[in-house]
Amino acid sequence: MELLFSKMHGLGNDFVIIDAVKQSVSLSADQVRYLCDRRMGIGCDQLLLVERSHRPDAEFRYRIFNASGDEVEQCGNGARCFARFVRDKGLTAADRIPVETKAGRIELIVQEDGQVTVNMGVPRLEPDDIPFQATVRAPRYAIAVKGETVEIGAVSMGNPHAVMEVPHIDSAPVAKIGPHLESHPRFPRHVNVGFMEIVDRSHIRLRVYERSVGETLACGSGACAAVVVGRIQNSLDETVSVELRGGKLVVSWAGEGQPVFMTGPATFVFEGKIEL
Amino acid sequence: MELLFSKMHGLGNDFVIIDAVKQSVSLSADQVRYLCDRRMGIGCDQLLLVERSHRPDAEFRYRIFNASGDEVEQCGNGARCFARFVRDKGLTAADRIPVETKAGRIELIVQEDGQVTVNMGVPRLEPDDIPFQATVRAPRYAIAVKGETVEIGAVSMGNPHAVMEVPHIDSAPVAKIGPHLESHPRFPRHVNVGFMEIVDRSHIRLRVYERSVGETLACGSGACAAVVVGRIQNSLDETVSVELRGGKLVVSWAGEGQPVFMTGPATFVFEGKIEL
Repeated sequence: MELLFSKMHGLGNDFVIIDAVKQSVSLSADQVRYLCDRRMGIGCDQLLLVERSHRPDAEFRYRIFNASGDEVEQCGNGARCFARFVRDKGLTAADRIPVETKAGRIELIVQEDGQVTVNMGVPRLEPDDIPFQATVRAPRYAIAVKGETVEIGAVSMGNPHAVMEVPHIDSAPVAKIGPHLESHPRFPRHVNVGFMEIVDRSHIRLRVYERSVGETLACGSGACAAVVVGRIQNSLDETVSVELRGGKLVVSWAGEGQPVFMTGPATFVFEGKIEL
Repeated sequence: MELLFSKMHGLGNDFVIIDAVKQSVSLSADQVRYLCDRRMGIGCDQLLLVERSHRPDAEFRYRIFNASGDEVEQCGNGARCFARFVRDKGLTAADRIPVETKAGRIELIVQEDGQVTVNMGVPRLEPDDIPFQATVRAPRYAIAVKGETVEIGAVSMGNPHAVMEVPHIDSAPVAKIGPHLESHPRFPRHVNVGFMEIVDRSHIRLRVYERSVGETLACGSGACAAVVVGRIQNSLDETVSVELRGGKLVVSWAGEGQPVFMTGPATFVFEGKIEL
């Protein structure tokens, strides 16, 4: 089978994107691992599969697979790349693109400058919805990690996030605490771990240890999770500039019950074809 | 400028290959670095540029650039990929392909099973030719590294190599000694460092710390250098199976004044186009 693909990145978080609308595509986990392999295959953090949606309220469905071959729920950087892809490839001419993901329906807005705004949906803060083991919902939770107790906020952006405030981003204990929080027993489906330095009420710096990936240059849903946690802890305003290692995103959240909006770039790199 | 390229690998050592015969191509060091970048660009260990040769005794000229943008002399894995590329792309129908490289003329032979034999040229053992600072040529040199003295063999395969015998490949001090030997003042142009376990006279295991790259899965010229050094130290037969982390090569050397032949696989992965 000959497969056409595109390579894109959002702030250095890179994707192989496959059009499964025009092509008939069915990939095994082995094939996903091969395509994601940086030396023997194409190479990327995640693979995106673009399909038509069967839902009446969505134009497309997109599926995301990690380099390990597992399907994951949601990825903010991937969503931006997805929106540019369906626009640039002529699959749609719309500015607002409703999309079905494993985590539910989201809406993408292509801006005039090419940046993409993603309606990331309404954050879920009830522990059972994250899922996170806690007796009652709270803005801060104490959790035991490696013999010490740290304070986190917890939220689901379609995928589970823990966010920990740190005084300085460069000295954040990402490698020390990230892997332990990621697989902490109180997060039964594991968790993405964000380390947030609050510069002021409209500006944070963030590093994210991603589930089954490790530290990454930029995690879009992690940026949203950090702003939601900062907002419920009364530390941030409605619109916040989030500085990640790979670049900058702008995140807005009006508050409880409202969706989170994330705006940032998506960069087309190359297109290719590969025999499977 | 729209650039067509292929992605190939030889034992996991991966290359972006650009046909500069059919395309008019001129790359700056910044562009090479971009193309080699695994997240923002295409991603590879090295970039190969295929050109027509102006020499009467060579059909093609190929140039190799590291991910840092520097042009390097020679790469055995790259040579095999190059041979498959010019054959598979129809640039030549010959089984034996004479090629001009920065390190001189080499000859490539495409075998019926698709493996490629590379005539890697005559190894140069005189210290001045490597270049290596020593008063007289010897099969073994004592050299001070990090306060201790180790024994190496030294040879040029177009590029400089130091080879150190170790009892067990898994415990070889690659990370400890590799970087220090690589930039040792007695190697004025730096050196690739091989760590060789001799299993028997026709079988070695090898790990290589490559100049300005670090440890790699497989270094073709390093495999040749190891066999030459093992031969002049009277430890190896003429034809030797070399087990690298990325797979197996077969290296033959008849001895002093003769060229080294290396045989191994070259794997086509995908082709693409990128805007520069």
